[in-house]
Amino acid sequence: MSIAIPEQAKVAVLTELKKFEFQHHPIPQISDDEILVKVEGCGVCGTDVHEYRNDPFGMIPVVLGHEGSGRIVKLGKNITTDSTGKPVEVGSKLITSIIPCGECGPCTSTPGRTNLCENMGCYGLMGDQPENKFNGWFGDYLVLKPGSTFFEVSEFSLEERILIEPVAVAVHAVERAKTTNLLNFASPVLIQGAGPIGLSIIAVLKAMGIQNIIAVDGQNDRLELAKALGASQGLNFNEFESTDALAAKVQELTLGRGAQFAFQCTGSPAAASTVWKLIARGGGLCELGFFVDNGEAKVNPHFDMCNKEITMVGSWAYSPEDYPNAIACMKSIKDAGLPITKLVTHVFPLDQIGEAVETNIRMEGIKVITVNE
Amino acid sequence: MSIAIPEQAKVAVLTELKKFEFQHHPIPQISDDEILVKVEGCGVCGTDVHEYRNDPFGMIPVVLGHEGSGRIVKLGKNITTDSTGKPVEVGSKLITSIIPCGECGPCTSTPGRTNLCENMGCYGLMGDQPENKFNGWFGDYLVLKPGSTFFEVSEFSLEERILIEPVAVAVHAVERAKTTNLLNFASPVLIQGAGPIGLSIIAVLKAMGIQNIIAVDGQNDRLELAKALGASQGLNFNEFESTDALAAKVQELTLGRGAQFAFQCTGSPAAASTVWKLIARGGGLCELGFFVDNGEAKVNPHFDMCNKEITMVGSWAYSPEDYPNAIACMKSIKDAGLPITKLVTHVFPLDQIGEAVETNIRMEGIKVITVNE
Amino acid sequence: MSIAIPEQAKVAVLTELKKFEFQHHPIPQISDDEILVKVEGCGVCGTDVHEYRNDPFGMIPVVLGHEGSGRIVKLGKNITTDSTGKPVEVGSKLITSIIPCGECGPCTSTPGRTNLCENMGCYGLMGDQPENKFNGWFGDYLVLKPGSTFFEVSEFSLEERILIEPVAVAVHAVERAKTTNLLNFASPVLIQGAGPIGLSIIAVLKAMGIQNIIAVDGQNDRLELAKALGASQGLNFNEFESTDALAAKVQELTLGRGAQFAFQCTGSPAAASTVWKLIARGGGLCELGFFVDNGEAKVNPHFDMCNKEITMVGSWAYSPEDYPNAIACMKSIKDAGLPITKLVTHVFPLDQIGEAVETNIRMEGIKVITVNE
Amino acid sequence: MSIAIPEQAKVAVLTELKKFEFQHHPIPQISDDEILVKVEGCGVCGTDVHEYRNDPFGMIPVVLGHEGSGRIVKLGKNITTDSTGKPVEVGSKLITSIIPCGECGPCTSTPGRTNLCENMGCYGLMGDQPENKFNGWFGDYLVLKPGSTFFEVSEFSLEERILIEPVAVAVHAVERAKTTNLLNFASPVLIQGAGPIGLSIIAVLKAMGIQNIIAVDGQNDRLELAKALGASQGLNFNEFESTDALAAKVQELTLGRGAQFAFQCTGSPAAASTVWKLIARGGGLCELGFFVDNGEAKVNPHFDMCNKEITMVGSWAYSPEDYPNAIACMKSIKDAGLPITKLVTHVFPLDQIGEAVETNIRMEGIKVITVNE
Ligand SMILES: [Zn+2]
Ligand SMILES: [Zn+2]
Ligand SMILES: [Zn+2]
Ligand SMILES: [Zn+2]
Ligand SMILES: [Zn+2]
Ligand SMILES: [Zn+2]
Ligand SMILES: [Zn+2]
Ligand SMILES: [Zn+2]
Repeated sequence: MSIAIPEQAKVAVLTELKKFEFQHHPIPQISDDEILVKVEGCGVCGTDVHEYRNDPFGMIPVVLGHEGSGRIVKLGKNITTDSTGKPVEVGSKLITSIIPCGECGPCTSTPGRTNLCENMGCYGLMGDQPENKFNGWFGDYLVLKPGSTFFEVSEFSLEERILIEPVAVAVHAVERAKTTNLLNFASPVLIQGAGPIGLSIIAVLKAMGIQNIIAVDGQNDRLELAKALGASQGLNFNEFESTDALAAKVQELTLGRGAQFAFQCTGSPAAASTVWKLIARGGGLCELGFFVDNGEAKVNPHFDMCNKEITMVGSWAYSPEDYPNAIACMKSIKDAGLPITKLVTHVFPLDQIGEAVETNIRMEGIKVITVNE
Repeated sequence: MSIAIPEQAKVAVLTELKKFEFQHHPIPQISDDEILVKVEGCGVCGTDVHEYRNDPFGMIPVVLGHEGSGRIVKLGKNITTDSTGKPVEVGSKLITSIIPCGECGPCTSTPGRTNLCENMGCYGLMGDQPENKFNGWFGDYLVLKPGSTFFEVSEFSLEERILIEPVAVAVHAVERAKTTNLLNFASPVLIQGAGPIGLSIIAVLKAMGIQNIIAVDGQNDRLELAKALGASQGLNFNEFESTDALAAKVQELTLGRGAQFAFQCTGSPAAASTVWKLIARGGGLCELGFFVDNGEAKVNPHFDMCNKEITMVGSWAYSPEDYPNAIACMKSIKDAGLPITKLVTHVFPLDQIGEAVETNIRMEGIKVITVNE
Repeated sequence: MSIAIPEQAKVAVLTELKKFEFQHHPIPQISDDEILVKVEGCGVCGTDVHEYRNDPFGMIPVVLGHEGSGRIVKLGKNITTDSTGKPVEVGSKLITSIIPCGECGPCTSTPGRTNLCENMGCYGLMGDQPENKFNGWFGDYLVLKPGSTFFEVSEFSLEERILIEPVAVAVHAVERAKTTNLLNFASPVLIQGAGPIGLSIIAVLKAMGIQNIIAVDGQNDRLELAKALGASQGLNFNEFESTDALAAKVQELTLGRGAQFAFQCTGSPAAASTVWKLIARGGGLCELGFFVDNGEAKVNPHFDMCNKEITMVGSWAYSPEDYPNAIACMKSIKDAGLPITKLVTHVFPLDQIGEAVETNIRMEGIKVITVNE
Repeated sequence: MSIAIPEQAKVAVLTELKKFEFQHHPIPQISDDEILVKVEGCGVCGTDVHEYRNDPFGMIPVVLGHEGSGRIVKLGKNITTDSTGKPVEVGSKLITSIIPCGECGPCTSTPGRTNLCENMGCYGLMGDQPENKFNGWFGDYLVLKPGSTFFEVSEFSLEERILIEPVAVAVHAVERAKTTNLLNFASPVLIQGAGPIGLSIIAVLKAMGIQNIIAVDGQNDRLELAKALGASQGLNFNEFESTDALAAKVQELTLGRGAQFAFQCTGSPAAASTVWKLIARGGGLCELGFFVDNGEAKVNPHFDMCNKEITMVGSWAYSPEDYPNAIACMKSIKDAGLPITKLVTHVFPLDQIGEAVETNIRMEGIKVITVNE
């Protein structure tokens, strides 16, 4: 397959807070160990927003966009497979994952938990690099350098490919949850927060065959989507007078015991307090709602932790090792007929990247993506 | 609901080796803590065959049949729920599970593993009891005494209800497998032996969303059923020259690594040896094919266990605690559209119980059941 | 061995709040399934104090005392072993454990976690029973009824036997901690609170060979005892300006990473908040300080749970299955030469039971016990 | 500290099968990222013997010796700590561990199990390297290149330092065993084979506080050493008529249940068959005796695996992540007063390396080491 490659191509550069500028650079020669990818689209993530508004990592100028996908247009001859050993060729559609440093404390002392790397590499979060101007997915091309982690996902639609990243977040959390041995087909599982992550977790759990999934959120349209994705029940917390009333309802739905396991997926401290009240004695909790600091939550150690003898697992991002699992999960979600692509509620052309990010900030819909022409 | 109950009813009694006799007994008064069940049907199990041919437990005369289901026709007034707390009433359809003694070594030292009870009670394996002539499912009625474990399963067809027992065997094995943390959506899993148990495990794994399931058997029709139930590949070992050739094929199907996990579901020592060769380094094995002694298998500790650093879990029967999981799993199997009832290949009226057992012995088909008029 | 048994004997009855009365009852006939124990001594526990001051369980009149030990003076002929199968005879020294009901939700749905039983039996917490006036250890005799859990511990001194109960609390917590796979010889482990439970945990961890144990408390004498029992470091939090300063010290003691695992053993909400700051990324926490409700603690879900990806296990009391482990642990503590009996700081004759309880309330010393003449 | 370094130094080169030749090479310049170590001694390992006799890895000419230790005589200025972050300086005493490749299938797909690396680096098993003539411990100097894994162990005697390697093998196996959750203070644990590995495991288990350790071997002197290192019982299998008689004895020592866990540490197929008979129902097994292929063992899947519902974990070598644990374990072994250095039964000067290896081959004693002048 021969694909015409232009001499130069554009990237959307965040040049200052809240300002994208389109820059054009020559497409470089691709070495034997590199890949040139024609970008097809990319999701807008909370991390992009965080950087857009505050530049907490001091990366400006930076090409953002890490939830992207595209097809190989030029393939270094030393590269025959993706990071799992699956064959790739020109035309193969790819996604990328993170790149642990291999040298920090967590990488060397706990190599099985590379999601905790303190010096993670990630296309779309690298800042300006003289050696690679095409290092983020918010551009028309992406250049994969040696040492990258990338995965062949040609069988999926663009939207599905983009959604593998939030599914990877969900799958990582579910793997953390599985270490408690509390999840089986019959476990009543509660998901607090029906945003992109909570909804992804619902789809993952449903794809695992879990029968009794209770979604809790404050918006009915999100609860409807939760049900379409596998929730057996949707509870709008605004319809309950108190946490006790909500807890009583959960008891009623669980043979009087409470949720065997709960996933806390909001960034709200009040929700992070409430969730403990909804769990059964002997049950478990996965806290994954706080990818940024939103303040402190209250918890009662006697009632919430000790007497119930809860097991709580925090969950942080994902590792590249989660990707094959997330990709297979996406297939299972499709097999189960779950409408996962409904998570994509807004699509913008890349040229409107600024508006795409602002839409995310206004918290309309669930997932905003950009697509390339 | 009022249901007419006859004064007496029949049971099929194994009165000597290979001989069933129909006996009639008066239906007893049902106390406040008992239940009278009208039997609708029952599966024939290898254990029934074992008893029919050899009486290894010295139970003769005995009413066999433990994989049965029926509906409540009389309900003691103290009983309002099944063993999980789910409401029951006259007309509710039930299945029974085993009854751990609570006093043997395993029951007292490892109460979380009641499947290891050395003095298990089980309707259909109790021998003659003056206090309960209706203590096996191969009869028209069953009397549930206090202390029984039973489950409301009215939502399922008779065949599905009967199949919850082999699914419980499968679910218990899968729970054992899950303790190794080796199963996820992407794990290549191999099932050796596509009989009732192997096929049930395939359905359970597919209902869990596992994508890459490789079935190995010597009969193509069984492999076809394996595929219908979720196997992505079916390998007829007769078509391979050697174990090495079979192993090479498995490598090819698993990115060169071998199966991440294998379930050994045959009772064949040769198969129990072969399976180790098909597993990846770092992988796992569940051995559940030997519910009776079929002799010794060979294993190479260096290549099979140490160098590969395999984790092997034996699996034995199930505990009552597995039943809610098995029931929810049956729902998930149906949700996934898997044709689990195709496991039932032969249906006999109860009057032909002898022929039903003989059919099982001839190993025609997969699962033989009896139904009551 | 023949032992003279008096016709009647005394028990200390809590007849109203804060009032013990000594009552005398005839020593009953001992059936073939019962045991008569001559009490030698008993620990005073927080639960006793709770009942003494508030009667939260409505048990008055009640013979308290559940951390007791004594020797068999009469043995029903059907009893030949203790609950683990170890032989017993007249003269054998016993302790008792709790008696799960076997029928509540937790007992039937999670029989491996009988510590969560909602209707637990326990000698010393049974209230007045016409059929057994000798049902608590604060008396001269104890009558063990059928169904009791009891353990032969003749090899230990009275103080050691009494301390097996707090060691069982510690051992249960350590087993919960072990489910995280975070404890090994090299793990830096932090214990917050050097009271009876925290000190017991230190001794248990030292007996397991853990090298780097950091004790945190506000009293130097407790920290000294912590070091005698195995702590490599004792940090008095009063000597640090802030939680950050304390955390920095813990970092310094742990190659810059923080504690791999922490046990929170105080009932203080402030401590339950602080402990999260002292744990390494990827680390774990066992919360077992809140056997009663002391109010809410604050936790930052982002910094404390998610980003660090902590695993937290609550721990609640113990089950009878923990007792063989606790007894073997007591042997290991002795093997290691750890001065565990220094936990017993006050000894009163049973006649001064009121003063013994008041001493506990004043929180002087660590452990108060009563001894019988 | 200033240390005189000669211009050249010798290494023992295996130049052909069963032939060592002492070669002298100039000591190279040490770069800012390298370390020069003066060797003090090194253990002779089965792997050395394997290479000496058969060269299975085709490494000849090769400087063997991987269980060595020595002190830093020259330290590249960029190196301030060992692989765990512990400070090092000239004079610090070091040991080395293995170096996973980071690129093979196991390294990329299961980075938490680097012991399964298929392309492991290891000083003493590297073959001839023009860039480093001092790449094995059977020499007077060792040059550590960038990327090495090494550990500061100055607090230990030379023999203890050398024994950290077999202790690492034992600690890795014990960590594998711990994943089964079957080990606690009270678990009866059986060790089959009282050679260097079995004895190391006994010491590790004793250092963990395990009370009931049963050693099985065919030599009484080894059983005596087993007892000195922590075994509560030593059983000479030659004194039992049959496996059944041996199993009966184990039952007698374990309240009638069998061993809760067994470590199979011999390379004998007969022993690998027998061990299953000695394990309790619900128990576990770690197979680590077959670091080379010694043929097939027989196992009865029904009696040994299924009905007992055993969990078996294979164990393979160790990873660098096991080293901090092994080093801390060595401290605990010393704390417990266990005479671990009695494992060293033969000491040869390096000049007699050939005789040292031959002594190992004759299987006299337990552990043979060489020391440098
Ligand atoms: Zn993102
Ligand atoms: Zn890193
Ligand atoms: Zn059956
Ligand atoms: Zn039992
Ligand atoms: Zn207490
Ligand atoms: Zn209970
Ligand atoms: Zn070695
Ligand atoms: Zn590797």
